[in-house]
Amino acid sequence: MSMTSNRVANKSSGSRTKDLLERFQTVRQFSNFLCEPLSPEDCTVQSMTEASPTKWQLAHTSWFFETFILEVVQPDFRPFHPQFRTLFNSYYNTVGDQHPRPGRGFLTRPTLETVLEYRAHIDRAIENLFRNDRLDASSLEVLELGIQHEQQHQELILTDLKHLFFMNPLRPVYREAQKLGSGDATPLDWISFEEGLYKIGHHEDGFAFDNEGPLHKVFLPSFKIANRPVLVREYLEFIRDGGYQTPELWLADGWAAVQNEGWEKPLYWLSDDEEVRAFTFGGERTLSLNEPMCHVSYYEADAFATWAGCRLPTEQEWEVAAQGESKEGNFVENQIFHPSPMISGQTKFFGDVWEWTRSPYMPYPGFKPAQGALGEYNGKFMCNQIVLRGGSCATSESHIRSTYRNFFFPNARWQFSGIRLAKDNL
Amino acid sequence: MSMTSNRVANKSSGSRTKDLLERFQTVRQFSNFLCEPLSPEDCTVQSMTEASPTKWQLAHTSWFFETFILEVVQPDFRPFHPQFRTLFNSYYNTVGDQHPRPGRGFLTRPTLETVLEYRAHIDRAIENLFRNDRLDASSLEVLELGIQHEQQHQELILTDLKHLFFMNPLRPVYREAQKLGSGDATPLDWISFEEGLYKIGHHEDGFAFDNEGPLHKVFLPSFKIANRPVLVREYLEFIRDGGYQTPELWLADGWAAVQNEGWEKPLYWLSDDEEVRAFTFGGERTLSLNEPMCHVSYYEADAFATWAGCRLPTEQEWEVAAQGESKEGNFVENQIFHPSPMISGQTKFFGDVWEWTRSPYMPYPGFKPAQGALGEYNGKFMCNQIVLRGGSCATSESHIRSTYRNFFFPNARWQFSGIRLAKDNL
Amino acid sequence: MSMTSNRVANKSSGSRTKDLLERFQTVRQFSNFLCEPLSPEDCTVQSMTEASPTKWQLAHTSWFFETFILEVVQPDFRPFHPQFRTLFNSYYNTVGDQHPRPGRGFLTRPTLETVLEYRAHIDRAIENLFRNDRLDASSLEVLELGIQHEQQHQELILTDLKHLFFMNPLRPVYREAQKLGSGDATPLDWISFEEGLYKIGHHEDGFAFDNEGPLHKVFLPSFKIANRPVLVREYLEFIRDGGYQTPELWLADGWAAVQNEGWEKPLYWLSDDEEVRAFTFGGERTLSLNEPMCHVSYYEADAFATWAGCRLPTEQEWEVAAQGESKEGNFVENQIFHPSPMISGQTKFFGDVWEWTRSPYMPYPGFKPAQGALGEYNGKFMCNQIVLRGGSCATSESHIRSTYRNFFFPNARWQFSGIRLAKDNL
Amino acid sequence: MSMTSNRVANKSSGSRTKDLLERFQTVRQFSNFLCEPLSPEDCTVQSMTEASPTKWQLAHTSWFFETFILEVVQPDFRPFHPQFRTLFNSYYNTVGDQHPRPGRGFLTRPTLETVLEYRAHIDRAIENLFRNDRLDASSLEVLELGIQHEQQHQELILTDLKHLFFMNPLRPVYREAQKLGSGDATPLDWISFEEGLYKIGHHEDGFAFDNEGPLHKVFLPSFKIANRPVLVREYLEFIRDGGYQTPELWLADGWAAVQNEGWEKPLYWLSDDEEVRAFTFGGERTLSLNEPMCHVSYYEADAFATWAGCRLPTEQEWEVAAQGESKEGNFVENQIFHPSPMISGQTKFFGDVWEWTRSPYMPYPGFKPAQGALGEYNGKFMCNQIVLRGGSCATSESHIRSTYRNFFFPNARWQFSGIRLAKDNL
Repeated sequence: MSMTSNRVANKSSGSRTKDLLERFQTVRQFSNFLCEPLSPEDCTVQSMTEASPTKWQLAHTSWFFETFILEVVQPDFRPFHPQFRTLFNSYYNTVGDQHPRPGRGFLTRPTLETVLEYRAHIDRAIENLFRNDRLDASSLEVLELGIQHEQQHQELILTDLKHLFFMNPLRPVYREAQKLGSGDATPLDWISFEEGLYKIGHHEDGFAFDNEGPLHKVFLPSFKIANRPVLVREYLEFIRDGGYQTPELWLADGWAAVQNEGWEKPLYWLSDDEEVRAFTFGGERTLSLNEPMCHVSYYEADAFATWAGCRLPTEQEWEVAAQGESKEGNFVENQIFHPSPMISGQTKFFGDVWEWTRSPYMPYPGFKPAQGALGEYNGKFMCNQIVLRGGSCATSESHIRSTYRNFFFPNARWQFSGIRLAKDNL
Repeated sequence: MSMTSNRVANKSSGSRTKDLLERFQTVRQFSNFLCEPLSPEDCTVQSMTEASPTKWQLAHTSWFFETFILEVVQPDFRPFHPQFRTLFNSYYNTVGDQHPRPGRGFLTRPTLETVLEYRAHIDRAIENLFRNDRLDASSLEVLELGIQHEQQHQELILTDLKHLFFMNPLRPVYREAQKLGSGDATPLDWISFEEGLYKIGHHEDGFAFDNEGPLHKVFLPSFKIANRPVLVREYLEFIRDGGYQTPELWLADGWAAVQNEGWEKPLYWLSDDEEVRAFTFGGERTLSLNEPMCHVSYYEADAFATWAGCRLPTEQEWEVAAQGESKEGNFVENQIFHPSPMISGQTKFFGDVWEWTRSPYMPYPGFKPAQGALGEYNGKFMCNQIVLRGGSCATSESHIRSTYRNFFFPNARWQFSGIRLAKDNL
Repeated sequence: MSMTSNRVANKSSGSRTKDLLERFQTVRQFSNFLCEPLSPEDCTVQSMTEASPTKWQLAHTSWFFETFILEVVQPDFRPFHPQFRTLFNSYYNTVGDQHPRPGRGFLTRPTLETVLEYRAHIDRAIENLFRNDRLDASSLEVLELGIQHEQQHQELILTDLKHLFFMNPLRPVYREAQKLGSGDATPLDWISFEEGLYKIGHHEDGFAFDNEGPLHKVFLPSFKIANRPVLVREYLEFIRDGGYQTPELWLADGWAAVQNEGWEKPLYWLSDDEEVRAFTFGGERTLSLNEPMCHVSYYEADAFATWAGCRLPTEQEWEVAAQGESKEGNFVENQIFHPSPMISGQTKFFGDVWEWTRSPYMPYPGFKPAQGALGEYNGKFMCNQIVLRGGSCATSESHIRSTYRNFFFPNARWQFSGIRLAKDNL
Repeated sequence: MSMTSNRVANKSSGSRTKDLLERFQTVRQFSNFLCEPLSPEDCTVQSMTEASPTKWQLAHTSWFFETFILEVVQPDFRPFHPQFRTLFNSYYNTVGDQHPRPGRGFLTRPTLETVLEYRAHIDRAIENLFRNDRLDASSLEVLELGIQHEQQHQELILTDLKHLFFMNPLRPVYREAQKLGSGDATPLDWISFEEGLYKIGHHEDGFAFDNEGPLHKVFLPSFKIANRPVLVREYLEFIRDGGYQTPELWLADGWAAVQNEGWEKPLYWLSDDEEVRAFTFGGERTLSLNEPMCHVSYYEADAFATWAGCRLPTEQEWEVAAQGESKEGNFVENQIFHPSPMISGQTKFFGDVWEWTRSPYMPYPGFKPAQGALGEYNGKFMCNQIVLRGGSCATSESHIRSTYRNFFFPNARWQFSGIRLAKDNL
């Protein structure tokens, strides 16, 4: 299967399998860990069509293993519940009907308790397959995909939950905010690249999604890219300069969004008069001016870049620039759940915030979706969405890499999405 | 206060007060009883704007006592939670802001547990007021109103829950269906009334809402009214005769609803080929052909009556006809939560199903809403809605009377709403 | 047919027929006269679903005569155009399919020129039937209905056109505003009526719509009704007293409309700072403070009445009060197309503005719609609408009477709709 | 100005100017010619938000010359009408306010007659500037842009009109269909290209829009592209093979459109049982199976390509392939207003139908919008839209070239938009 075609084994097959089991267990447990502070009510409600209830995501990630591994491999497979096939099918038409997306929040049953049993049941079944050596290479590849898939949903659990909590005037606290340093105003620096042919796409050992390949050549004109994401202090200047009131800075569809949605500041900002007060996973708090900007749409990112006399990087430029950079950063393992202030001297490409590129999410040359249901994983979304790169404070460190292509619609603001500037090298 | 102006005391004040305390406690406990089969998830979700989550209703009914009694009477009143005043204010502009109605389902916090504590807190506080003799006549009247208000919400808890469960393909069972007799096809009989001046409106001892008065005279032409509601078997004939495909039978707005909503049968009916299968509080089951029709809108009730060569009664006709009739019937205390089949010889005006009249919900001559917030209880809804009479299988027996005016928009189908026929006496 | 059951002939049949022909010709020509200032473009566009293009109305009124008379009476009937039967059918399901109402404005063809030919063709055909004595009593009754129907559409042509012109920032002038006197502030007086049984409904010679009967008795408690409609100066006080910002004054659905639609003043008012500037058929002009208020919804009328410590009259009260009053007033024949200022001493019940009653539009006791298509004329709209009485400056004088029941949805503002106050006589 | 930066003069300046005047006059007259079969009504109505009334377009194209040339150049400039600046401003925020797009169809005034006077007035004024030698190089460049702009609107006048006429059940005929040959089933051939660096973008003499540059290098992998667009007969196979019922063939957003819009065939197709009947500018007619497919969205084009085991070309592939090809084709000058059947041996890249590429409409590397209002011409639409190439039967022959980038939203179907296949060269 193409998703994992580059996952060439350097290790012995046995130790690789054992690693996989461990990662399976670790990742599955981390989902449960994320839900510990949540009540059954918190896990059930859907705050908008684009978001899914936590409970649904806990079940759906289990459904993935059940449908694509257990059902294929177990000789005497019997579903945990016959209707789960439909209820927790997200969008796989090849698998069959799906419970309508806007109705995910009506599923008060199965209860959270039952869903946790469902998870445990699937975990045991998968572990049994490992124990009995029932997983061939193809199943192991799907299992790897299932693990990565669950990591993606861990991030969505967090972002969807933040949106839900924001709808509640009580402003619930998910986890108490950790004391964060205030950082300093790391100066913006430009990294230059010469024009030339560059290789883009996944080509190393290790897992990658099918949309990260095939490896291919692109010609890039000379460009410069910022050494760090845009900070709160910079975005605040844009706001105070009338950014949200100046149509010339905006894409036409962006300006329409500003007017129709009444946007005057980023999502979750409560006020920006003296200091910036925002809703976070630690409740309402004052943002550091030196932390990376977050919760902006592509439209806002683009307007900011225009205002700054720059532009957003293409995803190819971003990838070329990030290839040699350190992957250290503020990921979900930090359990801060918020971008952390910059510290001078850092060149940050990973963690904190996903960075909007200016690249529509399209197939790479030669891309072919996999056969069967898993071919629906990525390919059919290659329209109307924009690529983001680099991972965020809600992403697993083990999940990210320089070729990773995240994608959202250009009006999406509820992800930890920020801005990196670029410009032509004239 | 006008709501209770007829509540003349025959009993000594002391015994009346003791009765009231008992009723308060009984009614409050019954709300909790209704929620026993429910998970926290079930209590939290809002399935449509017109419906409210169970948890919200448990809190709102407590808010009513807190806001209109504790806050008024307690010298050292402190709210259980400062934000509840807004969160659980339904529509009292005089009290202040309200959490937006379509957002009631986003309130995963407070949890069900906290709401139950809130209830217990309010109960204790009210009981203390009784104990310390802190309730004057005016407060006792508001308390009575609060009890009646809670009974209204008990019915809404059930109807809103039924709608929520119906959105779930698992078709959850609220309580196992009790074995019901199948009844027999009670023949339809007509009760005749002469033309003349009749007295309408509440005038007896005991509580009544302000909208049931003042007592006033109306002139009614001679009319006939059916001795029982329309049965499933009769409505089935209407369907099979093409009722939902014949525009001439429908009010213009009703026909628009049929087309826009794709109505082909009553709400909750799953099929009507051989037998009628419907979603009930006991899950999917076969309906008895002899049970009263339920879950139809005013539009369907009116179209059925037209098809049958009859019309719906006015609310005045209904009240005149019901005045002398037995109040025995199938109420929520039966814990059947479904209309029960008719038995020959019964003349049923109460229980089983609310009966659509043809009367828009308007003030009676001389009606004046109360001063202050409680004046918002009924008066401001006197537009665009239609009166229903008689109570249903989800109504408390102690809550209904012949002057009781329920009201819903003409397209509403999720109440236990049925049909009684009438005609001119020519 | 019930519409005209009271149209007992006092005159000889021959002279009655001749009168009818003359009225037919006069009314048909008046439609054309109303369109003289209009361009083909003006006649074609539909500004909202509730409104219809002038051209469509010119054709539809002709379709009425073609469908309900020519098609019935002419032995060799051939339609002017085979598709007009559907295109210009407003809502008669019995006749067949209808071009969708929101799509009336897409009909650039037939051109205005063709529609005027269609009108001339129908006129000639009807005149021929008169000449050849082909119209029996039944056809003559339908013809009378057709004339009345066309008069109704003449008013709608004007109100729909005013709405269309208001959508155009050029603020087109329909006909130059005539110089109007400024009137004086006629004092408000109350006319009292004793409680008792009153007869309501049409019972005189002459045409009436089916909805005006049958004649029937109602019991009315004692009441007072104002001697004239509410004036601009009075409504201005309501505005300046914060009427549009005070939810307690409004029906719940009215307050929702205020908030959702952003209402801050009546429709067509442009400003009310120093003087009231409004859009009229003569373009933008300053309103006289002494002219009757206009272009308010039922919600606004009801809120104003509440603010004034009064209420709106029921339609029965209005009819009883108007029965003996002069029918003189400012009607469309005046060609002012705007309410005219009051002059002291007048008691005005007719003309200038339709007056919102508090009565939902419902059938009178004993009402039965006619058989066949013409039964759809009135009966099926008896839901969700409110009765208005008295006619306006856009109504024909020959069209109005004290029993006349006009009806619109409570949020409608584009009619010449105003307010008369009433109160209980305590 | 960057739009015309490549418009290097080979001719003497004088003859170039004379040519421009002639082209100005020819193009302006062609707009009027297109409207000759139309009534004032036809020119006024707006059938959907995306479309504009003919009259509005006739005025807006004149407004362009008035605003961007007369106002700049004329020393004593006075607008034709002071409110036209707002009324006929399409989307230039730099110029000022705009009449809301969905309200363009409410502008019954100015009449068509006045708009034609406006056009004549602008024509005379521009001609005077030529005569008096008042146009400097910069103004001449804007004039060229205005001519091109008017040609774009000529195509939109046709496509918007077709949509309007389709909303009318009378199915108006714009111009009688000319007798067309039936063509033959030109075999599909593939043209191969080697991988390598290619130059993309405008670089020749003559006008080009700013979005066609700058000229830049791209690396393209080896690919094949079809020698002609997809024919009706091929698309019919897709339909008969269940294309519209097979979600696996569709992009996720495309499948949502199929379901939400109820798509079962291309726009304007009336039936496809035995033969394909479709609405055309000549009324309803039978399509030739050998004519290029038309009126499909990007979603349909993409699904068809997937079904065919191919893909759509990128815009770079298309441009490379078209560079050397003949520009002969079926353009608007043919006055057929419909794609014409293929004839064997043709390799068609231009005319008949715009061809959906798979390229989102994005800026080329180094693209900078012009300063001022004309910078809003193209740049701000570079989001959410898809590039189409090649021109159609509604495009002017003098308007098209291989670098021309048209763009529409992926759900758009009312343009003459078709399909060309491509595939990787493996």
